[in-house]
Amino acid sequence: MGLWFTEKQTDNFGITAKVKRTHHTEQTDFQQLDMLETEEWGNMLTLDGMVMTTQKDEFVYHEMMAHIPLFTHPNPEHVLVVGGGDGGVIREVLKHPEVKKATLVEIDGKVIEYSKKFLPEIAGDLEDARVEVKVDDGFMHIAQSEAAYDVIMVDSTEPVGPAVNLFTKGFYAGISNALKEDGILVAQTDNPWFKADLIQQVYQDVKEIFPVTRLYTANIPTYPSGLWTFTMGSKTQDPLEVPESRFHELETKYYTKELHKASFVLPKFVKDLTE
Amino acid sequence: MGLWFTEKQTDNFGITAKVKRTHHTEQTDFQQLDMLETEEWGNMLTLDGMVMTTQKDEFVYHEMMAHIPLFTHPNPEHVLVVGGGDGGVIREVLKHPEVKKATLVEIDGKVIEYSKKFLPEIAGDLEDARVEVKVDDGFMHIAQSEAAYDVIMVDSTEPVGPAVNLFTKGFYAGISNALKEDGILVAQTDNPWFKADLIQQVYQDVKEIFPVTRLYTANIPTYPSGLWTFTMGSKTQDPLEVPESRFHELETKYYTKELHKASFVLPKFVKDLTE
Repeated sequence: MGLWFTEKQTDNFGITAKVKRTHHTEQTDFQQLDMLETEEWGNMLTLDGMVMTTQKDEFVYHEMMAHIPLFTHPNPEHVLVVGGGDGGVIREVLKHPEVKKATLVEIDGKVIEYSKKFLPEIAGDLEDARVEVKVDDGFMHIAQSEAAYDVIMVDSTEPVGPAVNLFTKGFYAGISNALKEDGILVAQTDNPWFKADLIQQVYQDVKEIFPVTRLYTANIPTYPSGLWTFTMGSKTQDPLEVPESRFHELETKYYTKELHKASFVLPKFVKDLTE
Repeated sequence: MGLWFTEKQTDNFGITAKVKRTHHTEQTDFQQLDMLETEEWGNMLTLDGMVMTTQKDEFVYHEMMAHIPLFTHPNPEHVLVVGGGDGGVIREVLKHPEVKKATLVEIDGKVIEYSKKFLPEIAGDLEDARVEVKVDDGFMHIAQSEAAYDVIMVDSTEPVGPAVNLFTKGFYAGISNALKEDGILVAQTDNPWFKADLIQQVYQDVKEIFPVTRLYTANIPTYPSGLWTFTMGSKTQDPLEVPESRFHELETKYYTKELHKASFVLPKFVKDLTE
């Protein structure tokens, strides 16, 4: 059988993927980092044994985190990505010509370093002139920012280890303060099959802070349950009422203008978590 | 660690689930049948090592196979389910008061027998007075039927073993012949991540036979990639133009009237398979 990577997505269920080789393995200051070459998904970055991204399916998460808020905002000039050291969200953000500056605040410099080395088509745009990379604590960065960003994207790990602060109401309040007047927050908020309580909690917290709160989904086959949620908090703009003229052509593999709206139409058991 | 069920969904990727006990295991005349009690998903039926249905997530597949075509048809009085011996699709079909008769043609009587025993909340409605159960070859049943059904649902296994005939153009042509004038076919057509060629082939075949052809998706966490497709062929009715008055209240956990339309809005790489 050889080498297989197995992630226990719950205590009693997981995925398993055949590994060709381990490119790199290291306990960083923050987490266990492994860069694996898998047969099915190409190179795969895992942190603390959880799949973060793979070459084959990365486009789903990165497109859906970036394009939904960026087409919702009337003029997203300055974007902040918290986490996301693989660079995939930044790559998608830069497809929008309105964006003048994209700031990445990643706590673990090793994630950036090894993504550049083994996921170049994902991380390559971190070298772009519009991009500012800070190796820093996203929670602290938010606490110190005021009316600085048009869109803030929270591309975190699960709420364990270094990311635990990034799922608190205080953090979302800080984000509201760090956003300009038409500001939009989007955060990855795990899956409704195994983490319904988390989604419900984050949705309520965001709703108490932002006038417009929406949940949308995307299919990510290497993430638990294959159904991922993103929670959006917006000060003025509704992602369901984007004027037709705001959409422009974009090269994508998952996102489409039609899917922009359809991704907010939730299965009943997911919709129930927002009520 | 104890007993774990592992399905290799491709040669190099799979899912694994902790098993409390094996309720039943048997090589039937057609396939290997296992009824497992899992920690995560409750009782789970597998055929030839592939997950068919589980107590926890069965509602997605069964609701989405049944309600989309039944709300699309103006008066679905007689419904045929090919395969589907677990009874889940039949249970959903019976929620529609227009349905006077639902016929199930399942090739393997053992699937029915052990579903009734270990999945009673799924299979229970097979005893309903409106239901006719035939243990027979679905391909032959279709070949011998003419203008007999309003809706035909193909709830088959993968195109290996007993179901291989159920993915052929000849079968879809037979279904067209077995349908009445406003007839609708819906078939499960696997996932776009590992079986793109199959989806493309079936879509083209159905399109050459039915005036209206549509693809829709649903999230099924225990199926490969978590993203499942259903292909619909329809003689006259478009599922995207169902008059508002045709929808009625329904107790569901996944399907909603809004999701009816949204489930046809495809990710770009899936949409490309239909073009």
